[in-house]
Amino acid sequence: MPLDAIPIVVINPSENSAAADRGLSGNAPVLLREIAQLTGRLLDSGEASAIDLRALPLTPADLDWLRETLGRGQVAATLEAEGESTLTETVCPGVWWVTHHNENGAVASEFIEVTFVPELLKAHPDDVRIGLEHLELLISDLS
Amino acid sequence: MPLDAIPIVVINPSENSAAADRGLSGNAPVLLREIAQLTGRLLDSGEASAIDLRALPLTPADLDWLRETLGRGQVAATLEAEGESTLTETVCPGVWWVTHHNENGAVASEFIEVTFVPELLKAHPDDVRIGLEHLELLISDLS
Repeated sequence: MPLDAIPIVVINPSENSAAADRGLSGNAPVLLREIAQLTGRLLDSGEASAIDLRALPLTPADLDWLRETLGRGQVAATLEAEGESTLTETVCPGVWWVTHHNENGAVASEFIEVTFVPELLKAHPDDVRIGLEHLELLISDLS
Repeated sequence: MPLDAIPIVVINPSENSAAADRGLSGNAPVLLREIAQLTGRLLDSGEASAIDLRALPLTPADLDWLRETLGRGQVAATLEAEGESTLTETVCPGVWWVTHHNENGAVASEFIEVTFVPELLKAHPDDVRIGLEHLELLISDLS
């Protein structure tokens, strides 16, 4: 990534020294505003979006702050594929914290998804068709 | 429920004595065929459906057989409301085993849902709107 593509947030030391001491870059609140905009867009047009947290200049402290600020909502889901994915709704319905792990359990990627329901939780018609064939095989074995 | 509303499955003792010994009524395979039909309907028309397992004459052994036969798929989700709901996709994508618990953790109701994604996992627009207001309040507190 070219250096000039990284948005720089100027931290005023007199106001933000406590935040900087805690390892906060000041970028997390900017992201919170972005999430609010995307949520508004979801409501207005139904358009879903995702923010790749690994592609942004966020410190571990920023991520902790964001996770704590967004909180944990009512729905939590896991998808077991080659690695586990966790999809946790935040206290803001429609805003999901999505973490993909690799086969070794390490975090491979992390997203904020702004959507009524993440695509990953929906069964794909092709898979439903394969499942139905499996079901029909089970049934034919019974008779 | 009137007695004549209960579908009776005649078990041939010579053929099914082993099944009857295990507490199987013979109704679970009938249900499996129903699930296959509903899955076909989902694929053909997009129409989702639910089977109330508590409203059917199924023995605990029937339910165990059904759960084992349908297996456990890739997606599992929980919804924490007044009691916990668990929504587990079976090995047949689009066929979900949904269990609702009351506040004391006891099973309150149990369904097979045949749907691309259970409605309970979708954020409702009204809730998204309330979440956005909460987010905007958080943001205004930051500045």
